[in-house]
Amino acid sequence: MSNTAGQVIRCKAAVAWEAGKPLVVEEVEVAPPQKMEVRLRILVTSLCHTDVYFWEAKGQTPLFPRIFGHEAGGIVESVGEGVTDLQPGDHVLPIFTGECKDCRHCKSEESNMCDLLRINTDRGAMLHDGRTRFSKNGQPIYHFLGTSTFSEYTVVHVGCVAKINPQAPLDKVCVLSCGISTGLGATLNVAKPTNGSTVAIFGLGAVGLAAAEGARISGASRIIGVDLNANRFNDARKFGVTEFVNPKDYDKPVQQVIAEMTDGGVDRSVECTGNASAMISAFECVHDGWGVAVLVGVPNKDDAFKTHPVNLLNERTLKGTFFGNYKPRSDIPGVVEKYMKKELELEKFITHEVPFSEINKAFDYMLRGESLRCIIRMEA
Amino acid sequence: MSNTAGQVIRCKAAVAWEAGKPLVVEEVEVAPPQKMEVRLRILVTSLCHTDVYFWEAKGQTPLFPRIFGHEAGGIVESVGEGVTDLQPGDHVLPIFTGECKDCRHCKSEESNMCDLLRINTDRGAMLHDGRTRFSKNGQPIYHFLGTSTFSEYTVVHVGCVAKINPQAPLDKVCVLSCGISTGLGATLNVAKPTNGSTVAIFGLGAVGLAAAEGARISGASRIIGVDLNANRFNDARKFGVTEFVNPKDYDKPVQQVIAEMTDGGVDRSVECTGNASAMISAFECVHDGWGVAVLVGVPNKDDAFKTHPVNLLNERTLKGTFFGNYKPRSDIPGVVEKYMKKELELEKFITHEVPFSEINKAFDYMLRGESLRCIIRMEA
Repeated sequence: MSNTAGQVIRCKAAVAWEAGKPLVVEEVEVAPPQKMEVRLRILVTSLCHTDVYFWEAKGQTPLFPRIFGHEAGGIVESVGEGVTDLQPGDHVLPIFTGECKDCRHCKSEESNMCDLLRINTDRGAMLHDGRTRFSKNGQPIYHFLGTSTFSEYTVVHVGCVAKINPQAPLDKVCVLSCGISTGLGATLNVAKPTNGSTVAIFGLGAVGLAAAEGARISGASRIIGVDLNANRFNDARKFGVTEFVNPKDYDKPVQQVIAEMTDGGVDRSVECTGNASAMISAFECVHDGWGVAVLVGVPNKDDAFKTHPVNLLNERTLKGTFFGNYKPRSDIPGVVEKYMKKELELEKFITHEVPFSEINKAFDYMLRGESLRCIIRMEA
Repeated sequence: MSNTAGQVIRCKAAVAWEAGKPLVVEEVEVAPPQKMEVRLRILVTSLCHTDVYFWEAKGQTPLFPRIFGHEAGGIVESVGEGVTDLQPGDHVLPIFTGECKDCRHCKSEESNMCDLLRINTDRGAMLHDGRTRFSKNGQPIYHFLGTSTFSEYTVVHVGCVAKINPQAPLDKVCVLSCGISTGLGATLNVAKPTNGSTVAIFGLGAVGLAAAEGARISGASRIIGVDLNANRFNDARKFGVTEFVNPKDYDKPVQQVIAEMTDGGVDRSVECTGNASAMISAFECVHDGWGVAVLVGVPNKDDAFKTHPVNLLNERTLKGTFFGNYKPRSDIPGVVEKYMKKELELEKFITHEVPFSEINKAFDYMLRGESLRCIIRMEA
């Protein structure tokens, strides 16, 4: 065990004191891990839209002060009671959803929606005792998604930690903690295009480009990118996108445009915007008889998915996915291996990098739509 | 070749002269089969709702006089030019949809929606020359679904003929021409419940009971039948239904009732009513993480399927099927074999039998909701 095991660690964290206000990098206390918990030293973290969304707190009950961050790479510092499959020094990715390995979902081969550790955006404390492990001068600081990686040290439930190949560069594979795996898995695990097939990707942000990367890996012959922002089209080529459709350029529905381009529809589509009308287009643009549409993007509360049932009866399939159907502990190490074997390219997702002290710049890049992923490197 | 080959055959047929008026069994002429056509001697036929629906002609352009009928068993009498895989004497089931074996759908392992021979309820003539093979005193009589089995002889495209085991009793396996295969295949080929799983069936008519039979064959541990008609519940037990839910008995949505009965939802559901709100219930009653809902029932033109996208994102799958995803020529002979091996029980679907001269009684039984399948036996 490290000599900090069992001790409170004082370290730097980027604390969000108020909704929408710049984070403050300052010293906090991180308590030791309790039963079934692990304390991690974070080496590198990255910023995802979900962090920004809850930091802005426009749609939810605000929970502050809070430490955000859920995409990261780190090393186990110490483990709590009952943790047997991790030890100090292990290289890991914390994951915002978990795998208890004991519930019906974890025991099902088809689901990754763990009953115990499924994503909970409202919870700001640890499951074990309902308390936070972060504090500053005795004031508790809330957790986010059970990960809170905008800190040099954090405490995470063991079920939310994927142990990975120690040779893997953490400043690359950290992006597999959330968005990239979500898009990649939506294609590889759910849409499952066969070699030579046609795929439409709705939304060319990081998740959509990861879905395109999955289609490229699968050997799709045509990857049609759909986005309202024409600026995204050029970069999307690097991710295997072969053709572009901007719905603004047409008077007819985009599903009709795609059907005309593809003799009746694409074999697979993946929807990564969360916009309800894009979901409908993504479903209706797949070919009858065999087409499969996969929904990834998270919609607004009041949105409805609506279609004529005949579109289904004509043998189309509509599926949704969460975290690309990956089970965090069982499957993410294998995704890291895909990167190590050079099947999966991650470098192209990383468009920016800042030191931890400048973490607010990562928010600026994302809010201006300039970045796919901005790596935030902890300083030694 | 039989000595009638190449000749016009005069035989009895049940002609529908007007919408909703009793059929008239009388002598008609049946022309020889043309290119890629087969002339069949029908030994037994049965009545399906689709016959009644188009005979009533309340929702469509009426096409009369017409010979209805699309579930039947028969023997090849003669074959037209280019037919190489059938010969006189072969035992066959005519099928209302076809398999040309040459289009993208036929070449796809996933689809049975043949581009050339897909069901067409508006077409009243043969594809080859746009003419009918039936006439009376020179007046053409329209075909129905390319099968028109309410006749001692009929002409069918070779792609709509399944050659079956000659040992199979035609007065049983004839029901596999349409409804029973549709329900059975929806479960076996599309929903695919595993041994021990839970299945909900919406609608306990012949198609729904065939879907239940598929769940029974699959080894489902619980088969929950849902129907607004309480009289159907007792008979449904014969088809493996273990529990019954009548939505009228509850103040809450039936999907909630089923979720409470099954700790979160069934593993699979099959919707066989065509009612849009039943479709929504059938989808929303499957378990998150792994649930699959299959739509079979055909809706009204203006119906919409509507759900909150989160129901999909929580890893539910929604699929539709047509003719149970069976390819008529490739797959139906194998379904007959399931019956021959006593895996599939067909007798229990056959509740009534009438001689051909009393065919209108079969319509009465169905309109009064008394029959599942009424066999209509041609007289020697």
